[in-house]
Amino acid sequence: MTQLHPDIADVSSPTETIAQAIEADLLIVEHEFSALLARREAEAADHGDGYRRLWQSVTESARGGKRLRPRLVLTAYHGMNGAGSRSDAVQTALAFELLHTAFLLHDDVIDGDTVRRGRPNVAGEFSADALFRGTDAPRARLWGQSAAILAGDLLLHAATQRAARLTAPEPVRSLILDLLDRAVFVTAAGELADVGLATGLSDSAIDDVLAMTEAKTAEYTVAAPLAAGAALAGADQDVLDLLADYGRLVGTAFQLGDDLLGVFGEESVTGKSASSDLREGKQTSLIAFARGTTEWPALEPLLGRPDLSAADAARAVASLELCGARAFVERLLADHVSTAITALDSPLIPAELAATLTRLALGCVGRPS
Amino acid sequence: MTQLHPDIADVSSPTETIAQAIEADLLIVEHEFSALLARREAEAADHGDGYRRLWQSVTESARGGKRLRPRLVLTAYHGMNGAGSRSDAVQTALAFELLHTAFLLHDDVIDGDTVRRGRPNVAGEFSADALFRGTDAPRARLWGQSAAILAGDLLLHAATQRAARLTAPEPVRSLILDLLDRAVFVTAAGELADVGLATGLSDSAIDDVLAMTEAKTAEYTVAAPLAAGAALAGADQDVLDLLADYGRLVGTAFQLGDDLLGVFGEESVTGKSASSDLREGKQTSLIAFARGTTEWPALEPLLGRPDLSAADAARAVASLELCGARAFVERLLADHVSTAITALDSPLIPAELAATLTRLALGCVGRPS
Repeated sequence: MTQLHPDIADVSSPTETIAQAIEADLLIVEHEFSALLARREAEAADHGDGYRRLWQSVTESARGGKRLRPRLVLTAYHGMNGAGSRSDAVQTALAFELLHTAFLLHDDVIDGDTVRRGRPNVAGEFSADALFRGTDAPRARLWGQSAAILAGDLLLHAATQRAARLTAPEPVRSLILDLLDRAVFVTAAGELADVGLATGLSDSAIDDVLAMTEAKTAEYTVAAPLAAGAALAGADQDVLDLLADYGRLVGTAFQLGDDLLGVFGEESVTGKSASSDLREGKQTSLIAFARGTTEWPALEPLLGRPDLSAADAARAVASLELCGARAFVERLLADHVSTAITALDSPLIPAELAATLTRLALGCVGRPS
Repeated sequence: MTQLHPDIADVSSPTETIAQAIEADLLIVEHEFSALLARREAEAADHGDGYRRLWQSVTESARGGKRLRPRLVLTAYHGMNGAGSRSDAVQTALAFELLHTAFLLHDDVIDGDTVRRGRPNVAGEFSADALFRGTDAPRARLWGQSAAILAGDLLLHAATQRAARLTAPEPVRSLILDLLDRAVFVTAAGELADVGLATGLSDSAIDDVLAMTEAKTAEYTVAAPLAAGAALAGADQDVLDLLADYGRLVGTAFQLGDDLLGVFGEESVTGKSASSDLREGKQTSLIAFARGTTEWPALEPLLGRPDLSAADAARAVASLELCGARAFVERLLADHVSTAITALDSPLIPAELAATLTRLALGCVGRPS
């Protein structure tokens, strides 16, 4: 776990802008991530070819992510004029990306998904390989699921290991560990709540769906990375709280935008079928709102049908429009975004950081922008 | 994550024997474990009743363990005349128990088991509750599995968090983190290898089975806890290596003993059916040996049959005796134990620690003793 570029990470050029610093550090995060995975794949070979392939498959999974969480750690760190160790900020950025990759792996196991980002995921790759080698379907599925559970465990552990080895003095070190701990605790709550909604075991009123979204996504995606970056820069608790509040609002807004795109988005723009949320019977904010309206009896039978026809999909979309769900969620999203932007209006937040975060918040409205 | 008894943990009475110190510290481990779980259950209530019940169920799961790993951390720490922080030893002991509980939870998910230590495990409890509430079987199973995956993630993270907050100076802190990292890495390799054996996707010669056992169990159960305890006591790398070597041998011997008991043990003594390993078709050292003998054609059809009759079970047991598998594994176990004991014969290991570890190693022969 040596840090590979102390020369780059710890010395900033006097003429480097904040934006340049963030991009430079993101390259180091990428390099460190690749180096970790390559080292692990090499070490895994001692434990047999299956384990080597597990790490190879994890490396594939890690490709193509947007690195949103590392970017937010670094945005807050540099935006607060980072006084602490720059290489700690890079390591923390990587820790959040490892955490994210771990959550995706276990989320896919829970959802029974075998594809992610248009490619077979770890479970998909392992079970396809087992089938190819002549194993029966249940055993192939077990092999795929086991590999994905273990891969998630390994990356979750790697995330905490990074945070454990930060060089920041107390109380900053403990603060980062606390933020990571809370992120894991809250995200697990959100994931369980999501399964509760999907299985019909939990209430699915709009407030339940919003609480689930905030817990499952907003905390570890936006709130915790921003607070961690600011903590490493030496910011006060007031700033951390403010950024975390902003993060929960924007993280939730982002998901509301996804809910809207999932039904009203143009397939040519979003790259996924506009009726897939309907086919899956996903418990989104739109559905939660519609449940309390007179359209519900007409809408309900159309949800969760894998064979939904184009005509029925169009009927469901119209129904969600007619009952006011679209307008309600659009308004809710706009409210979240404006509250988030208002929260940034504080003398504690430097102007350039406030501007960057305002742009990010506005990006949730009318995506893809 | 405050340490609750610094007064007890950091001050040892001058008349306290090593054995008394270990027992006293085990009580603190127990107390800290309970306190952590109680705090988490209380915090979880903010995220809904399902999440509170998840922590309640984890608390149930954690009961009744033998606390072997904490005992080994503390045995090495006190046995090496612990010079470092005693409360760090307690926290590390707890970290290994958290790790163990996490591994059991995910191992059960992988094996599809819903019972552990004679009680429903997390998955069993959650799926039973869902069925009781009228959910269909696939959804109930999903609810149970999701809860168990998340519970394992939470405890795995808690284990690393404990290690991250040790107060030991460098290089001891990093050494403990390295040992934990290796334990997770190697155990995952062993777990994957075990699934490979069970699904028939991996070779299952005796060497493969032994390598799997050493990786899946011996490393995190014996080798890493002993090395960690000694590291915290300030012992040299030579001592750590020696204890880890001993640990891998004894951990493997322990599993070989389990393999023998699983087939030749008295049900009245072991508390489990002597034919359950045969019914499950478990790929043990006995089976791996038998595969290369002339008894195999007679034995193979009797394995992995859930409905195995008592007469057929007796035939399989006789076959494992006749082909020499029993004698082979007994000899292998004895060799592991004697090599382990010989490894302790070093001036680096204090006499009392050597005596304790010798007794532990001998306990693997002819268990239950």
